[in-house]
Amino acid sequence: MPRQTKKKEQEDGKKQYSVLKVREEIVGKLRKLGERVLSYLERGEFPEIELPSRTTTNIEYNSELRQYVLGSKTVTRTTRNIKHLRPFTQLMWMAMFAKQLVETRKTSTLRDAFYNAIGFGIDFEDQQESDETVTELETLVGTVREDFNIYPEERSSVFGRLVIEYTVPGYEGRRLDLTTIPDGAMIGPAMTTAEFVRCDAEQVFVVEKGAVYQRFLEENVSDRHKAIIIHTAGQAPRATRRFIRRLNQELNLPVYIFTDGDPWGMHIASVLIYGSALAAHVRELNVPDAIWAGLWASDISKYKLPAMRFNDEDARRIVELERDPRYVSDPWKREIAVFKKIQRKAELEALSRYGLEYIVTDYLPEKLAEVTKR
Amino acid sequence: MPRQTKKKEQEDGKKQYSVLKVREEIVGKLRKLGERVLSYLERGEFPEIELPSRTTTNIEYNSELRQYVLGSKTVTRTTRNIKHLRPFTQLMWMAMFAKQLVETRKTSTLRDAFYNAIGFGIDFEDQQESDETVTELETLVGTVREDFNIYPEERSSVFGRLVIEYTVPGYEGRRLDLTTIPDGAMIGPAMTTAEFVRCDAEQVFVVEKGAVYQRFLEENVSDRHKAIIIHTAGQAPRATRRFIRRLNQELNLPVYIFTDGDPWGMHIASVLIYGSALAAHVRELNVPDAIWAGLWASDISKYKLPAMRFNDEDARRIVELERDPRYVSDPWKREIAVFKKIQRKAELEALSRYGLEYIVTDYLPEKLAEVTKR
Repeated sequence: MPRQTKKKEQEDGKKQYSVLKVREEIVGKLRKLGERVLSYLERGEFPEIELPSRTTTNIEYNSELRQYVLGSKTVTRTTRNIKHLRPFTQLMWMAMFAKQLVETRKTSTLRDAFYNAIGFGIDFEDQQESDETVTELETLVGTVREDFNIYPEERSSVFGRLVIEYTVPGYEGRRLDLTTIPDGAMIGPAMTTAEFVRCDAEQVFVVEKGAVYQRFLEENVSDRHKAIIIHTAGQAPRATRRFIRRLNQELNLPVYIFTDGDPWGMHIASVLIYGSALAAHVRELNVPDAIWAGLWASDISKYKLPAMRFNDEDARRIVELERDPRYVSDPWKREIAVFKKIQRKAELEALSRYGLEYIVTDYLPEKLAEVTKR
Repeated sequence: MPRQTKKKEQEDGKKQYSVLKVREEIVGKLRKLGERVLSYLERGEFPEIELPSRTTTNIEYNSELRQYVLGSKTVTRTTRNIKHLRPFTQLMWMAMFAKQLVETRKTSTLRDAFYNAIGFGIDFEDQQESDETVTELETLVGTVREDFNIYPEERSSVFGRLVIEYTVPGYEGRRLDLTTIPDGAMIGPAMTTAEFVRCDAEQVFVVEKGAVYQRFLEENVSDRHKAIIIHTAGQAPRATRRFIRRLNQELNLPVYIFTDGDPWGMHIASVLIYGSALAAHVRELNVPDAIWAGLWASDISKYKLPAMRFNDEDARRIVELERDPRYVSDPWKREIAVFKKIQRKAELEALSRYGLEYIVTDYLPEKLAEVTKR
């Protein structure tokens, strides 16, 4: 199968992602929530809200959607019940804080939200309780917290054949060609909310390791393979997961993921693809069509890689993964069997035993041929 | 005292950092090393080299230089001694690998170096042994490994009133204005080796926390205070430490460091300023004139910050710091005494209790006035 080609010079009117639209929608939803609560009060009734339950019994893996979703159970939070009053108030404050962030176009973090609440006199025991309230707001509003400007602190980065246009204050309309920054550009709030204006990449390579990302950049993989290259820096930050999803959905680019050949690398790939149980209440983070392209357990013998013996944690982890509904098909199933048999693991950098360039000149094209031929 | 002002439009001939010169020097030193070993062989003698000892008894804190340095003890590594043959060979291979990197202008990591050695048939037990050989090469050549293109994987970032000119292959002569990237630019190999062509900043703010960095960017601290802002992301990667040193030494900019108010934040600041014992063999990483400007233990009561009780590790750590020769003067000494008394700590984000902007509108100017008035 020939690799997909997609060149687009999008017109202003055709842009698929619009930060303005997102902002309008969020503010609309938050205002509606406030109006609803207000109308209860004006009728002299106790305000209440209903939201999907996030208890483990209501989280299920949907094999059609290929991700975790919430079931049909809901919970009602009513101020009639004195026990609900505290979390109800916390949730209302968080909704107000979110609306403020979106309207003033400022970003924040979970920790900032917590301290802001404390300063306001909102009684959170600790940050964990405040984080939980943010998750609840995501469930209620039906979107990720990045849409109401609460971002993770971690940043990963991107390089490649894509021109973006910023939408953040002070930078509206300014463009950046992602091939012009030789160290790669950070995926922060500005990148995450940028519009894609021109792309002549045909695929996206996502790599777990900084050394491999740097190698891909220096060996000019972006031109050789017409690619956009993304570094996750271990488990990908949520903003990065969403950015990859946008590349896949808005630009129709296939996504290939390269991680270390161990249970933890597999899991990094699978969370990118299928999402996590913890984020079952949102849909905007995973990329069901992405492909885990290595390092596979079977690559260890195929490429005669220097490999380390599993420690106890690795051995336990691979047994856990075997029981996970996300790993029932190949390559997962097949590679888990190999890992269990050899009880060994290898890092992506192990390919450097054949020289620094080998991963680009030999491994990458061989792997792409292998995963795209099916 | 008025803050230092420094505007420079440097001419090509006046640039203080020159990647070409660094490259020439390194290759010269490595070639000389090789020639020396070769001449022993040609005379039919066993090659030997002498290098400064890095045992703890030879590491001392020099209060004049305000950093750790190596003492006068040296060790001789001679191939006459069969026990030395293995580390001698490992060191020679690493020197060859370093020369190759510099000549081909490719960057690498400690892990890549290890696997490359394995592939070459060099007998390293594990990566730790290979890392140790890199440190030995630094000691022998008298410079940091970044100069022979072995970089850390971690990246932190920078934003502000500085225009740089890249020197990495494919980007020579291309410039980047660091105010044009709203998420900040990564401090990778390209940034680290860039030349500074125009700077109209008057100072550098170094912050430990991503949330505070983002706040400084969004509140336009770079214009309000004519500043360059750097995010360390916890303990600063070596490449970032060196970049800050260059800003201080080449552009004469004062450096102010903001960390969490706890023993770990203090230590992040002090390593930036005085360096670490582990890096006593190199001089290019620390910034002796940088100033730790907060969060201080005394800020907790001064600003009535939400603070957490010390855990056992915090309590132990503060006692350790008290005995450390880097902490004998103020503000260190004074703040250690306060920490010991209150046994509490606060994060930088705790200032958000007065609103997201407070750290920029109130805390920052107050703190700068305080630390510059002395």
